[in-house]
Amino acid sequence: MTEPHALTSPPPAPHPGDTAVLTVTCPDRGGIVAAVSQFLYNHGANIIHSDQHSSGLVGGTFFLRMEFSLAGLDLALDPLRRAFQTVVADPFGMEWHLSDGARPERMAVMVSRYDHCFLDLLWRVRRGELRVEVPLVISNHEDLRGDAETFGVPFHVVPVTRENKAEAEAEQIRLLREAGANFVVLARYMQILSGDFLRGVGVPVINIHHSFLPAFVGANPYRAAFERGVKLIGATSHYVTEELDAGPIIAQDVIPVTHRETPESLVRLGRDVERQVLARAVKAHAEQRVLVHGNKTVVF
Amino acid sequence: MTEPHALTSPPPAPHPGDTAVLTVTCPDRGGIVAAVSQFLYNHGANIIHSDQHSSGLVGGTFFLRMEFSLAGLDLALDPLRRAFQTVVADPFGMEWHLSDGARPERMAVMVSRYDHCFLDLLWRVRRGELRVEVPLVISNHEDLRGDAETFGVPFHVVPVTRENKAEAEAEQIRLLREAGANFVVLARYMQILSGDFLRGVGVPVINIHHSFLPAFVGANPYRAAFERGVKLIGATSHYVTEELDAGPIIAQDVIPVTHRETPESLVRLGRDVERQVLARAVKAHAEQRVLVHGNKTVVF
Amino acid sequence: MTEPHALTSPPPAPHPGDTAVLTVTCPDRGGIVAAVSQFLYNHGANIIHSDQHSSGLVGGTFFLRMEFSLAGLDLALDPLRRAFQTVVADPFGMEWHLSDGARPERMAVMVSRYDHCFLDLLWRVRRGELRVEVPLVISNHEDLRGDAETFGVPFHVVPVTRENKAEAEAEQIRLLREAGANFVVLARYMQILSGDFLRGVGVPVINIHHSFLPAFVGANPYRAAFERGVKLIGATSHYVTEELDAGPIIAQDVIPVTHRETPESLVRLGRDVERQVLARAVKAHAEQRVLVHGNKTVVF
Amino acid sequence: MTEPHALTSPPPAPHPGDTAVLTVTCPDRGGIVAAVSQFLYNHGANIIHSDQHSSGLVGGTFFLRMEFSLAGLDLALDPLRRAFQTVVADPFGMEWHLSDGARPERMAVMVSRYDHCFLDLLWRVRRGELRVEVPLVISNHEDLRGDAETFGVPFHVVPVTRENKAEAEAEQIRLLREAGANFVVLARYMQILSGDFLRGVGVPVINIHHSFLPAFVGANPYRAAFERGVKLIGATSHYVTEELDAGPIIAQDVIPVTHRETPESLVRLGRDVERQVLARAVKAHAEQRVLVHGNKTVVF
Repeated sequence: MTEPHALTSPPPAPHPGDTAVLTVTCPDRGGIVAAVSQFLYNHGANIIHSDQHSSGLVGGTFFLRMEFSLAGLDLALDPLRRAFQTVVADPFGMEWHLSDGARPERMAVMVSRYDHCFLDLLWRVRRGELRVEVPLVISNHEDLRGDAETFGVPFHVVPVTRENKAEAEAEQIRLLREAGANFVVLARYMQILSGDFLRGVGVPVINIHHSFLPAFVGANPYRAAFERGVKLIGATSHYVTEELDAGPIIAQDVIPVTHRETPESLVRLGRDVERQVLARAVKAHAEQRVLVHGNKTVVF
Repeated sequence: MTEPHALTSPPPAPHPGDTAVLTVTCPDRGGIVAAVSQFLYNHGANIIHSDQHSSGLVGGTFFLRMEFSLAGLDLALDPLRRAFQTVVADPFGMEWHLSDGARPERMAVMVSRYDHCFLDLLWRVRRGELRVEVPLVISNHEDLRGDAETFGVPFHVVPVTRENKAEAEAEQIRLLREAGANFVVLARYMQILSGDFLRGVGVPVINIHHSFLPAFVGANPYRAAFERGVKLIGATSHYVTEELDAGPIIAQDVIPVTHRETPESLVRLGRDVERQVLARAVKAHAEQRVLVHGNKTVVF
Repeated sequence: MTEPHALTSPPPAPHPGDTAVLTVTCPDRGGIVAAVSQFLYNHGANIIHSDQHSSGLVGGTFFLRMEFSLAGLDLALDPLRRAFQTVVADPFGMEWHLSDGARPERMAVMVSRYDHCFLDLLWRVRRGELRVEVPLVISNHEDLRGDAETFGVPFHVVPVTRENKAEAEAEQIRLLREAGANFVVLARYMQILSGDFLRGVGVPVINIHHSFLPAFVGANPYRAAFERGVKLIGATSHYVTEELDAGPIIAQDVIPVTHRETPESLVRLGRDVERQVLARAVKAHAEQRVLVHGNKTVVF
Repeated sequence: MTEPHALTSPPPAPHPGDTAVLTVTCPDRGGIVAAVSQFLYNHGANIIHSDQHSSGLVGGTFFLRMEFSLAGLDLALDPLRRAFQTVVADPFGMEWHLSDGARPERMAVMVSRYDHCFLDLLWRVRRGELRVEVPLVISNHEDLRGDAETFGVPFHVVPVTRENKAEAEAEQIRLLREAGANFVVLARYMQILSGDFLRGVGVPVINIHHSFLPAFVGANPYRAAFERGVKLIGATSHYVTEELDAGPIIAQDVIPVTHRETPESLVRLGRDVERQVLARAVKAHAEQRVLVHGNKTVVF
């Protein structure tokens, strides 16, 4: 077996690396769409998809996502970025990002022992559903090494104990940086990440929580759902912030359950929701569809 | 217009008043189903539907619901009840109830100003979907009198203020008793009922809460859902207990929402879930499908 | 009781009649969004919502819906329309429509005997969920006159038999024109409308079909669903075309069912889906969110 | 790597091989439940779950599924079977089956090139969600050999062409018999099985069709769904019969889609529904929850 180095999607047939995505957040006022679309048109960009949202007419925030073809561009992306800053972004006070669809995001996965979210993500990457590269997997346990290797993904074990937590997190950050990870997915990683880690890692971290937040924050949500006698169980994917289970929600879903279920069968049923919801959130993030605004998200 | 006296379902075509429902709760042990089904068979009862559940093999509680035809019975219901007590219920230590499908439950409705749950319930009764009689509606406002009268249901206004709350609740209980209500539905009744009321009324009270409990307990759940940025909103129908929004859950459902919604549009969207969930809970209750066990329900 | 004349939504609080909606369909090419948004910006229109879609990069069709505030407009709507035709629509070969949110659409309802879709629509109009006026209801039966009058909507009975069908349809068209109906909703109207009617009426006609089309086209879909043993039943709202049940689909939904259901209980369960799906379709149409393209729809 | 021989669930913790499932189909009449439950009670069987259904009071068919603990049984399963035949089954004219939970069903999988249903099933077996053994996989292509081997399942390639179809099917039947398969799952197997195969194989064959049948029977349902402009796409799992896509339906589900989707993206979205629906159907079948009645199923 050759040395694993990274899991990469097959070359995507329909979108041959030839689109870019511009995302914009700025104070709402007249003329934004006109300015952006005129700029792109002037430079030969053909807009394929466009979504916008305003959080309110007066004093609101404006959000924009435009996906355009690189085919007819009169500039390379970097000069285009410089031009955009001067011509459009500065006058409107924009925060913005222009990503290159030809360079997929690099997604690191952190996982413990549960395999369902982990395998589901790797299957989707291999199949080309998630257009990301997976340069590494970090786990606090050995269990899933075999599965990672099946997919040709480097697998690093960083054991975490109460005593070594700071060192372990430093090692995790080092590995993530070395691998050039653009974002991190916690695919049922069963350790709480410290504020230091979150500040240090410098890229978005996406978690899957096994309840419909804000119900059943914290540990053992299926047990809590069983005790409360709910008729739905769910899962929530969100960006991780320092406050546990309180970060901006990207995706949620639920399934109906009955009195027949036990805490154990809820765990089993919940796996299907968890992996679906996480996959949806990761796909949206990887396609630059998620704009964070305070503690909430706009998902285009 | 004739004096309204009660809203009654049209004579039901498919089930001509000729079934009865037996519900049983008892400690689980062998032989329960054999004993009950043998008893019913011996008395000529043809079982139409049967559902059972056990909360656990060892030390668990057993739940049973059997619906049977009255056609071939060799006894009237009251002698049958006496025989059942002696022959089956006593030996197994059962709590049980035998209701007569020919006598629909009498459902009182309490409502404030929102009309969606209220109209939906009355319409379902008129259609024959809910096999109940509605002997009265109690409101703390005049607003929905016209609608109640359209359906021929007596409408009583009992204004509630901080000062008169005890008297108001006493008057409500008096009206409910006089009307012979078997259960009460709070169809978005915007007053919190006291423990005194709940103990005094002596019949089950079903509420509809406008969130997927236990998320967003208390007032203004749509506003809270908006602030938290959830991607689902829901509704929960539950039996009312003294602890606010904490009673046994009968039915829940959710719908997906996006960043586009405002607190106002969440209210609008939520109305559709509220009325569906409440109708489902009321139908299950009226058909003796709900068995309460501690703070949870078995819904057959 | 005063003479019924039309059911009108209460004055809407959040959107005080001050928005307009522009919808555009044209061959896709570069610069469309820039041209439209620049035009609107030049005339002081603040874009509130914008959605676009392209059916394909090469040789595709472009669809746009923009909702903008009338507050800062430098022109009245009619001169704005004339300017738009010259400055934007002609160069891009657009089909377009600019509606005035201050003038709600006039929705006529045609109904037979089933009341569920009919009542649901009228409730929603009265509550302000559907921003339309209902100038008349046409039925081939007397049954729902009382309900229509409760809402203050004029109710016209036009009996239809095999012999008088052509005359009846001519009378229906006369009534619809006289009432100034902008669109017609068939709320379980149980007569098939002829091609002559559809051509003569000159406004869109929206139907609700009680199956998930294209399964179970034609009569008795619940019976057909029962015979086939499906585990889902559904409803489809679509624009009516001459080919039965084959027009452009606006909205669809389903609910799960089990072996327990009978054809009769499927009818009962289906009512809830039918009225939800029809309400969703009517709301989308009334808010100019539906653009028809061949036999399909774009629903923004 | 050791020779693959079969994929087996891990020893199940909660149900230690100690339950059996009795399923019964017979003409409906009084006394069936009493007779069955009395028989089981007499032999020391503790009923854990029981479900029943009648297709109609008069002249209907009665269906029963009882799961009971083997712990206190006074007989081994084979003598129990003989006693049941004489004491209960013969008097009531029952078709019945008594399966032993300690001996999981042997599930053969047939697959072509799509991996999503295939991987999902094998993963669920490995997790212990599906309590079956997988003695072999048959494919008409080499593609998924590596995946099968990862799960330790024997993988047989039987190429199928128009010319060799009869021989290929004979070889498939030989392999299935040799492996002792109790049922066959077509996990997106892209060849139509002949009537000869179905008669010859002698065990149930479960298929997953990528539409909500009966809509879009036959090839290319996603393309057909795209052309029709539906707002939902779905999947259907059913027993295979000689008439294509017309066998008894076990499970169905749908997801909402919009005008944004292409035929390609429908294929991608559909994969998630297909694997969920197939897994649900296989689980129900493996747990003896599905009783076939004519062209329909009872799913307990």
